[in-house]
Amino acid sequence: MTTNLQDRVDLTAVTRAAANAAKAGAASSDVERAGWLAAVADALDAHVDELVELADAETRLGPVRLKGEVARTTGQLRLFARVITEGSYLEAVIDHSVPSATPPAPDLRRVLKPVGPVAVFSASNFPFAFSVAGGDTASALAVGCPVIVKAHSGHLQLSIRTAEIVTQALTDAGAPEGIFALVSGRENGTALVQDPAVKAVGFTGSIPGGRALFDLAVSRPDPIPFYGELGSLNPVVITEGALSTRAAELAEGLAASFTLGAGQFCTKPGLVFVPAGTGFAGEVAAIANTKPGAPMLTDRISDAYPKGLQDLAAQAGVAVVGGTVDQYATADGAAAVVLSTTAETVLEHPDALLEECFGPTTLLIEYRDRAELERALGVLPGNLTATVHAQPGEDVSGLVDQLSELAGRVLFNGWPTGVAVNWAQQHGGPWPATTSLFTSVGATAVRRFQRPVAYQDAPQELLHPALRDGNPLGIPRRVDGVLALP
Amino acid sequence: MTTNLQDRVDLTAVTRAAANAAKAGAASSDVERAGWLAAVADALDAHVDELVELADAETRLGPVRLKGEVARTTGQLRLFARVITEGSYLEAVIDHSVPSATPPAPDLRRVLKPVGPVAVFSASNFPFAFSVAGGDTASALAVGCPVIVKAHSGHLQLSIRTAEIVTQALTDAGAPEGIFALVSGRENGTALVQDPAVKAVGFTGSIPGGRALFDLAVSRPDPIPFYGELGSLNPVVITEGALSTRAAELAEGLAASFTLGAGQFCTKPGLVFVPAGTGFAGEVAAIANTKPGAPMLTDRISDAYPKGLQDLAAQAGVAVVGGTVDQYATADGAAAVVLSTTAETVLEHPDALLEECFGPTTLLIEYRDRAELERALGVLPGNLTATVHAQPGEDVSGLVDQLSELAGRVLFNGWPTGVAVNWAQQHGGPWPATTSLFTSVGATAVRRFQRPVAYQDAPQELLHPALRDGNPLGIPRRVDGVLALP
Repeated sequence: MTTNLQDRVDLTAVTRAAANAAKAGAASSDVERAGWLAAVADALDAHVDELVELADAETRLGPVRLKGEVARTTGQLRLFARVITEGSYLEAVIDHSVPSATPPAPDLRRVLKPVGPVAVFSASNFPFAFSVAGGDTASALAVGCPVIVKAHSGHLQLSIRTAEIVTQALTDAGAPEGIFALVSGRENGTALVQDPAVKAVGFTGSIPGGRALFDLAVSRPDPIPFYGELGSLNPVVITEGALSTRAAELAEGLAASFTLGAGQFCTKPGLVFVPAGTGFAGEVAAIANTKPGAPMLTDRISDAYPKGLQDLAAQAGVAVVGGTVDQYATADGAAAVVLSTTAETVLEHPDALLEECFGPTTLLIEYRDRAELERALGVLPGNLTATVHAQPGEDVSGLVDQLSELAGRVLFNGWPTGVAVNWAQQHGGPWPATTSLFTSVGATAVRRFQRPVAYQDAPQELLHPALRDGNPLGIPRRVDGVLALP
Repeated sequence: MTTNLQDRVDLTAVTRAAANAAKAGAASSDVERAGWLAAVADALDAHVDELVELADAETRLGPVRLKGEVARTTGQLRLFARVITEGSYLEAVIDHSVPSATPPAPDLRRVLKPVGPVAVFSASNFPFAFSVAGGDTASALAVGCPVIVKAHSGHLQLSIRTAEIVTQALTDAGAPEGIFALVSGRENGTALVQDPAVKAVGFTGSIPGGRALFDLAVSRPDPIPFYGELGSLNPVVITEGALSTRAAELAEGLAASFTLGAGQFCTKPGLVFVPAGTGFAGEVAAIANTKPGAPMLTDRISDAYPKGLQDLAAQAGVAVVGGTVDQYATADGAAAVVLSTTAETVLEHPDALLEECFGPTTLLIEYRDRAELERALGVLPGNLTATVHAQPGEDVSGLVDQLSELAGRVLFNGWPTGVAVNWAQQHGGPWPATTSLFTSVGATAVRRFQRPVAYQDAPQELLHPALRDGNPLGIPRRVDGVLALP
């Protein structure tokens, strides 16, 4: 359990330690691992002030937001502790033998086991919840997988300190040596994805960065699963009914959502489809203009923001309705910008207009009728979220079907920023939102790091406790096709 | 629902029809789809004699085996009908809103939806169970995904006739136009994997063929999941205790298993670890030599068999204990061959010795002690199965842990050929056994073709029935973290 942060660490020693720890991880009980997660959560909570100060210095996200994010992170660790002690995550299935069948059926019992060491790539925009002790780490540790975190360079000192706290808490809680490590540097990152000891990858970041690592993971001699969350435009559709009923409330809600955290959320509403000719864009811009500029996460991000805006604004048919695209990074940071275009323009130039722009900006897209709206939605790439604002009585069922194809979470009369950490959450969607049919947030995130193994005619004492007669763990199981509660 | 078998079909028309059918598939009820599967099963059973005759002419597998395989195939279709009507496969989760939480938690409800059109690549060695109406087709249709089968050239006429029967049965059962299609030819196969309308691939076949298609699937602009079952050596470990207690029975069992179906099962025991210096190889060879030669599936396979044998036998340290490696395809077909080597030799030349040889042959590997055995197991690639033969009282727990890392199914005192189709089955394992953390046989195979979608604050009438208040489908659901039976 070492925190090695030279760009040239002995990565082989780190991955070898993780491979060794994988055996102990697989052998550990759910109760033991729940204890590890609780210990990490408690330790982070105990150090919240120190960590928030470090995080604020590196990310400029502000103490209020950062304190909330620590709470989210420790809550997440505790959720996964509950998930594993509940036991359904093991998907225990028992089919007793059927000697009279043709051919005779053996006794067969199936359980999910940890996949082995997992490489976790931290995100810049959530220095706690999607970083060293974030959701990928928590869900992998929860099922018994060793974790090697690749620190994000945007908050390296925070990463080092967090890793120290995590390491100490794990050691104190009796977790095996090598179950957790931190490395840094691009070179170590690419080496990790290719290391034979690493069996899966969790990643949150940009489309180009994620795609490059995905390509490495799948081109290994033994390809491994790459769970990447890459990019999302998070389309919002506002119907005529909703706009005519509550335009002011919608403008307020949208402005608050797309400027939240300087627009640096993966669920920021980046595209908003609105009925044509209503002046809604102006309303949004008027509110957004009152929002103070906010500092961005890193210099690279604040440099990229005006560049992205200018590229969008330079497209024929795109108007700047609020703010200016000629802004550059200042002490105050990025100011909100509202752009506007038409569905027709999007249909003509989808590639140029459907580019994610990280920062406090949104593109309003005016549609003339439902048919045009549906055509425009038809050219969108996959997303984490899709939202509809409609009034009771409006028929939006076809629209909801279309949005369900486009995203992993469909919201009604709300805003996509804010991702609850619970059992039902789905944070993932069709490419390029994510690279898999899984979620990176919520209880089922653990399934990414598990592999099924079935035991045929095994003696009781050699079976995983989840599969033994009498259900010693007291967990939900499927027995001879019938799901049974403990 | 057309059966188009020119090598140059209008593939775009086929995939467009599938994309259209995807909407109807997603909208269909579980009861409706269970009806489709039952109709296909009934139709295949009704045509069993005709189909077996066609299959025997093309595959030479014999009417007894083929009749059994039709029963397995229709049983599989009916199992998936039960799986979807039981409803757990939807993984319905409801988290009610918690207005008092910080931040307030919305109402969130998650369900699994069909991923969209699926391309299915048939295998040569199971002309029914892993072909046109086999497990991939059945599990994809079960969850509402349109299926486009790429026929295996080894049984093209059977594929065409099966597709006709399937198509007619689906039409009669009211399934949507375009929900099922058959294409053939390598060019169509590669085009299918790259077609934007295709959202996932199921494949059973060789490592080189599977890897080539996997590489295409993951290098698309929008990578898609590729569920491939590629290759497996299926190691068997016989302990000293087992061998000293029941050598004759083990020799009989092994000889029967590795020669079954002319050794053309993906679960054929291809490597057998036995204590050194016992003469067990001779016993196996003596029995295997009494087995009649059996015809192989295709000329390509019967040509490759002696070549594979010769390559293995040419390795230093490998002895031919039974049969001859100089055999060539005859009317009688392939005869059994028993090879023998030592664990030491395997450790020296793992790559050369750990090559799957499709046909009635097995390689016995003599180990001197448990430590050498464990070292040799440590160099094996991933497998579908791993087997241990041991006596009560022998400590094999460490061995079982090691085998669990190596394979998706671990057998005790049995033989891996024979894959029960039930709820607990796991037919898949670490690379190159399969390319994913899923199974291609058994109830959970459906999960490969589903994607989660969560609905936030949705009106009741817009929710999937699985997620509505009052549980109208009467299925198991998790509500506010608690799994509840209907």
